[in-house]
Amino acid sequence: MNQSFNVQGMTCGHCEKAVIAAVRQLDPAAEVQIDRSQNRVEVRTELPRDAVANAIREEGYTVAA
Amino acid sequence: MNQSFNVQGMTCGHCEKAVIAAVRQLDPAAEVQIDRSQNRVEVRTELPRDAVANAIREEGYTVAA
Repeated sequence: MNQSFNVQGMTCGHCEKAVIAAVRQLDPAAEVQIDRSQNRVEVRTELPRDAVANAIREEGYTVAA
Repeated sequence: MNQSFNVQGMTCGHCEKAVIAAVRQLDPAAEVQIDRSQNRVEVRTELPRDAVANAIREEGYTVAA
């Protein structure tokens, strides 16, 4: 299932890696694509949307509702 | 010996950790303090200044001459 998130606060490539790692810690098979210039994170996973959003928030980023 | 560097491109805490790790990889005993708001990296080490600057550059940051 494809999920799309607006994520604020990703300033560099390290941040992208941190977001990817946070999602993959919950679902190692998740596919994560990030367009930082658009604050966009696309996740292909069977995880509930809230779980993905919370994992990204716990890394310190703001996820739009 | 205290060395002070002007480093451009550190956008977040991950970047600070990357800079610290790069210096400590060369000198595990190095003390590194970073004031990101001032683009300032202070290093206490016996390494040559050029070696420290190059380690930071290799992480992708710009170090003033």
